[in-house]
Amino acid sequence: MSKPLILVTNDDGMIAPGIKALVELSSEFGEVVVIAPDSPQSGQGHAITITEPLRLNRVDVFEGITAYECSGTPVDCVKLAKSIILKGRNIDLCLSGINHGSNASINIIYSGTMSAAMEASVERIPSIGLSLLDYSFEADFSAAKHFTRKVIQFFLAHGFGDAKLLNVNIPKLSIHEIKGVKVCRQAEGNWTEDFVESKDPRGESYYWLTGDFVLESNDEGTDIWALKNGYVSVVPSMHDLTHYKAMDSIKELEDFI
Amino acid sequence: MSKPLILVTNDDGMIAPGIKALVELSSEFGEVVVIAPDSPQSGQGHAITITEPLRLNRVDVFEGITAYECSGTPVDCVKLAKSIILKGRNIDLCLSGINHGSNASINIIYSGTMSAAMEASVERIPSIGLSLLDYSFEADFSAAKHFTRKVIQFFLAHGFGDAKLLNVNIPKLSIHEIKGVKVCRQAEGNWTEDFVESKDPRGESYYWLTGDFVLESNDEGTDIWALKNGYVSVVPSMHDLTHYKAMDSIKELEDFI
Repeated sequence: MSKPLILVTNDDGMIAPGIKALVELSSEFGEVVVIAPDSPQSGQGHAITITEPLRLNRVDVFEGITAYECSGTPVDCVKLAKSIILKGRNIDLCLSGINHGSNASINIIYSGTMSAAMEASVERIPSIGLSLLDYSFEADFSAAKHFTRKVIQFFLAHGFGDAKLLNVNIPKLSIHEIKGVKVCRQAEGNWTEDFVESKDPRGESYYWLTGDFVLESNDEGTDIWALKNGYVSVVPSMHDLTHYKAMDSIKELEDFI
Repeated sequence: MSKPLILVTNDDGMIAPGIKALVELSSEFGEVVVIAPDSPQSGQGHAITITEPLRLNRVDVFEGITAYECSGTPVDCVKLAKSIILKGRNIDLCLSGINHGSNASINIIYSGTMSAAMEASVERIPSIGLSLLDYSFEADFSAAKHFTRKVIQFFLAHGFGDAKLLNVNIPKLSIHEIKGVKVCRQAEGNWTEDFVESKDPRGESYYWLTGDFVLESNDEGTDIWALKNGYVSVVPSMHDLTHYKAMDSIKELEDFI
């Protein structure tokens, strides 16, 4: 491809430091178009907006870069980019992020960042979701930029083969501290919820979600293992949720009914 | 198990005909506790509520059945049920639905019904998401109830083995027209978006999501094939999104960087 068309999106909106980092480095490789939600959309998962109209506004945030804000979810953003903003054009790559925090393990299913990337891959656009394990607004994105640049270079040189969607997480370390990249599987884990219960000024209860991540096992080969051991984790991910190995377990259901 | 504890939820709220059907038939098998969103949550996918508090209200909808409405998403409902309403108790089965419309193929990732069921399975509660391919409020749920009853009986007699989450779709046919049940894989397909663009009274554009489902192939063995051929489709599903077969495709990335 001569000058690839790269769609950049995220779930935190246009003012997040991570999207600026992503726009800067993707501009090194091709034509960049940005679309991001006009409000924070963390934890939106694969939500889409059905019962309300969506707004789309051209904004001037990044010099020389076409950018739009959308009133919907991260998935809505990708749908609008493909169907309205870039209608009829071939999008070569979608980059979503760079998010703050971890999208490793089960976090992938709650993450607006990863859901935007997944939506692009459902629409057959090779896609990468990126997250830096640092919640600070002042987070240092230099290592994240370095490795993201490498992943883009790899994609442009080799493609991703059968992989259409990469879940990339970068540990909170400097470039020199990071040992390299591991191609991993998603670690098995979940969140143990512990809602904070409190009373509003009228004395009515409310619940606020919090929780602790519980890792089932810390096997080598998982994304959590890679991150804990100083590597960038790369999990090729997909939207076919069929549990193929479990099909035999319930095959008898066909005769039972 | 002597008297199983069954959690019933959905994405359309307490007044939907499908949840009534589900409460009625699950009451045949055990103790039922219901939690549903207090507003329609179709298309919410795996969204969770992070930046706002959640409300939980006991409601009197189904005679003799403990029921709560929640201000959040379907996934929030399941988290609140496990952590607050049924804290410390073992939930034997979660049933989500019965939804109107199809959760087959790619619809699973957008579906609030299926995301509630998936959240339960992430929390290790065997779970079934159910949908009837009939959008009408007057839809006839008798076939859906019949086959759901059979699936519950199978679960109570045999368990689901390795399967933790079933995506069950029921065609819009009578009990006698339905040929049986097929254990399937998720069909590959996507939505071709075609937003309706219009102008509000101030002359500003808005976009409203619509689209056509495009099936990649109609292979026997997929959920879409089963439904089109008069079967109830049952897809064992999971939350490990790793694309294992694609790991080799990008293994070279480790050396490239």
